[in-house]
Amino acid sequence: MDLHREIPKINLNPIQRGGILTPEARQALIEWGDGYSVCDYCGGRLDLIEKPNIRKFMYEDLPKFLGSEVARTTNGAREGIFTVMYALGKEGKGKYVLADGNAHYTTKVASELAGLGIKFVENLGAPEYKIDAEKFIPFLQEEKPALVVLTYPDGSFGNFSDAKKLAKICRDFEVPFAINGAYSVGRLPIKMNEIGADFIIGSGHKSMAASGPIGVLGMNREYAERVLAISKLAKNKEVCLLGCSSRGATLMTLMASFPKVVERTKHWDEEVKKARRFSVEMEKLGMVQLGEKPHNHDLMSFETPILYKISESHKKKGFFLHAALKERGIGGIKPGKTKVLKMSTYQLTNDEISKVVNAFREIIEENRELLK
Amino acid sequence: MDLHREIPKINLNPIQRGGILTPEARQALIEWGDGYSVCDYCGGRLDLIEKPNIRKFMYEDLPKFLGSEVARTTNGAREGIFTVMYALGKEGKGKYVLADGNAHYTTKVASELAGLGIKFVENLGAPEYKIDAEKFIPFLQEEKPALVVLTYPDGSFGNFSDAKKLAKICRDFEVPFAINGAYSVGRLPIKMNEIGADFIIGSGHKSMAASGPIGVLGMNREYAERVLAISKLAKNKEVCLLGCSSRGATLMTLMASFPKVVERTKHWDEEVKKARRFSVEMEKLGMVQLGEKPHNHDLMSFETPILYKISESHKKKGFFLHAALKERGIGGIKPGKTKVLKMSTYQLTNDEISKVVNAFREIIEENRELLK
Repeated sequence: MDLHREIPKINLNPIQRGGILTPEARQALIEWGDGYSVCDYCGGRLDLIEKPNIRKFMYEDLPKFLGSEVARTTNGAREGIFTVMYALGKEGKGKYVLADGNAHYTTKVASELAGLGIKFVENLGAPEYKIDAEKFIPFLQEEKPALVVLTYPDGSFGNFSDAKKLAKICRDFEVPFAINGAYSVGRLPIKMNEIGADFIIGSGHKSMAASGPIGVLGMNREYAERVLAISKLAKNKEVCLLGCSSRGATLMTLMASFPKVVERTKHWDEEVKKARRFSVEMEKLGMVQLGEKPHNHDLMSFETPILYKISESHKKKGFFLHAALKERGIGGIKPGKTKVLKMSTYQLTNDEISKVVNAFREIIEENRELLK
Repeated sequence: MDLHREIPKINLNPIQRGGILTPEARQALIEWGDGYSVCDYCGGRLDLIEKPNIRKFMYEDLPKFLGSEVARTTNGAREGIFTVMYALGKEGKGKYVLADGNAHYTTKVASELAGLGIKFVENLGAPEYKIDAEKFIPFLQEEKPALVVLTYPDGSFGNFSDAKKLAKICRDFEVPFAINGAYSVGRLPIKMNEIGADFIIGSGHKSMAASGPIGVLGMNREYAERVLAISKLAKNKEVCLLGCSSRGATLMTLMASFPKVVERTKHWDEEVKKARRFSVEMEKLGMVQLGEKPHNHDLMSFETPILYKISESHKKKGFFLHAALKERGIGGIKPGKTKVLKMSTYQLTNDEISKVVNAFREIIEENRELLK
C-alpha cells in the first residue's frame, strides 16, 4: 500500500496549520516513536513520570499556561470535552449541555455519548454569525444544564464571543462553564482563570504543534476531585483517563513543542494582522468574508460566488479549484468545494499569503471567459 | 527541559517489545507526524479516507486479520474495552462485567468508567496461576453480566486460558464475550471467529509495532450496529468514537507496520521456543518461572529469590540490579525491583537472549559473597 504523503507547500486547511511540528517535536517524534516509549520509568501514573519530566510539564508548565490549578493531557480535545460532560452528567445536576450554535460537531457527539441532551444558543445569522452571551440566560432560567460549553473561537467562522460575560452569567446561575479552546489554546494568550471558566480544553494536534491525537484539559482543584476521581479498584489510577491517556510520542511532541508554542502565543497580534490583510485582499477579488469583521482569528470562511460561477461551466466542474491550487503548491481546500471556503493564514508568512491571493487572482483571470 | 531518550540496547519490558517500530513505521511517522496529517482528504469519516487508503485497511485488511466482520481503530486497547462495556452496559441487560482474575487493571478501570460492577473468576493459585474456563459458569448461573472479558494472555503471567471453551460457555448463556488480546493481536495468529468470541481488542503500541496510543477493535455486524451507532445530531459520525479516533501518525504507523506484523505472527512458534529456552536458562540460575510451564508466550514472570537476597545486603539495595543490567545495555526492569521480575523475549535474537542470561549469571557471580 502506498503510504506516501503529498504535502502541499502551503496548506490552507485550518485544522492543519496549528499542528505543524516544530523541529523540536520532530526530534522527539523520532526518539519517542516506539509504542510505549514514555513508560520506561513509569511508577504507575503517566502524569507523575519524571524521566522524561512529564510531572513538571503536567503539574507546573501546563496549568500555568492554561491558567488552571490542575491540568491533564487527554486523547484529544473531543475526548476532554466528553470526559467533563460525562463526569458532570453522572452527578445528575443537569440533564443537558447548553452550547453555542457554532459548536463543533464533536460537542454534539460528546453530549450523546455522555447520555446528555444538548441545546443550542443560535448565532445571530449572516453575515457575522455572532453568538450573544446574554442569549444563554433564558435557557439557564428555564432549566439548569449539566454544563455550558462555549466554542472559542468556533471552527466555522473563527468568531470570539464574550467569554468573560458568559462566565459571569454561568457563575450567577451556578452552572459549570467550559471553554472549547481547540482553536485558541496554543495559538493565542488565553487563561481559564482570567476568563472565569471552570474548564478549558485544547487540542495538541490542532493548535499546539503536536502529533495527534492529543488534547489538554485544565480545571481547578474543586472540579478535579470530581472529574479526576481515583479508581476504587486500581491503585492510584484516574478513572476518567482509564489510568493513563496520551501514553506515547503524542505527549512527547506536545512537550517538545511547548516552549515555542508558549512563545508564539505572544505574537498573536501579528497573526490577526495577517488574517485581516488576507480578508481584505480576498474581498477585493469578489469573495465575502463571513464571521466577525474586522476578523480576530486566522480561521476564516469566505463565500466565493465567483468561483462557484466558474465551476458551473468548467469542464472539471467544482474540482477545477482544487486542481488549479494544487498546481501552485497550495492545498487544504477540499476537492469539489467552490461555494464557501474555509481557510487559515496561521503561521504563514506575508509572502506566502500574497502567493495565495495571487493564486486565486490568477485562477479567476484564466477562467474569466466562463464568467460571462 | 531535557527530552533525550535513553534507549537500552535490549529492553526486557513486555510492554515495550511488541511496540518497537518497523522501518516502514518510522518512515510513516516522519511523513505523517504533523497534527492532523491524515485528514487532508477526509470527507467526514476517518475510516472512509482513501488517500491514504485507510478505508481498505479498515474494511478489508484489519477485519480479515482479526477474524471479524467489522473493525475500527481506537485510542488504545483500554479505550476499546471501555467502548464495548459502555455500549453494552447502556443496554441494561447486565449490571456487571465478568473478568478473569488475571485481568489488566484497565479492565477494572474501564468497568468503573462504564458504570458497571465487576466480578473476577480467580486463578488457580501458585505456581501456574491458571484460569479455568468452567469456573465462569457459577457466576453466569447466578447473574448474567453485561460482558465477559478474558485477558488472552494476561499481562502478569503470560497465560493462555481455554478461550474457545469459554466462548462456548458464553454462547450457551447468551452473554457477549470479549477477548482482550493486547498481548496477542499482532504477536501471534488469533482470530475472533475461530475462537467464537464477540469482540476482539488489540493494542497497536503494545503488540503491533505502532506509535501509541492506538488500539484495534473487531466485532461482527450485529454488534457493530449496537456499539458503533451513528449520531442523531452529527451526520454519519460514530458516537462511541466521538466521530474519529486515531486521527494522526498513530494510525499511519499501524498501517505501515501492518504487512510485517501479519508476517511475524506466522513465526510465533519461534518466539515460544525462545521464551522456553530463556525460562530454562533462568531457572538454572535459581529463578522460578511463574505461570504456565512449559510456557506459551514471550511474557514471563520470575520469582528471583537469589537477587532479592543480594539486595538485602547490597549497598545499592534493590537498585543494584537495575544499575548492573544498565551497565550491560539491558533495560526494562523497574529500578528497585528484585523479588519478582516480569520480562519478555519477544523479537530478541538468540544471541541477545544469551546475553541477558549471561548478564544475570555475572551479576549473581559478582555478588556471590553477599549470598553467604
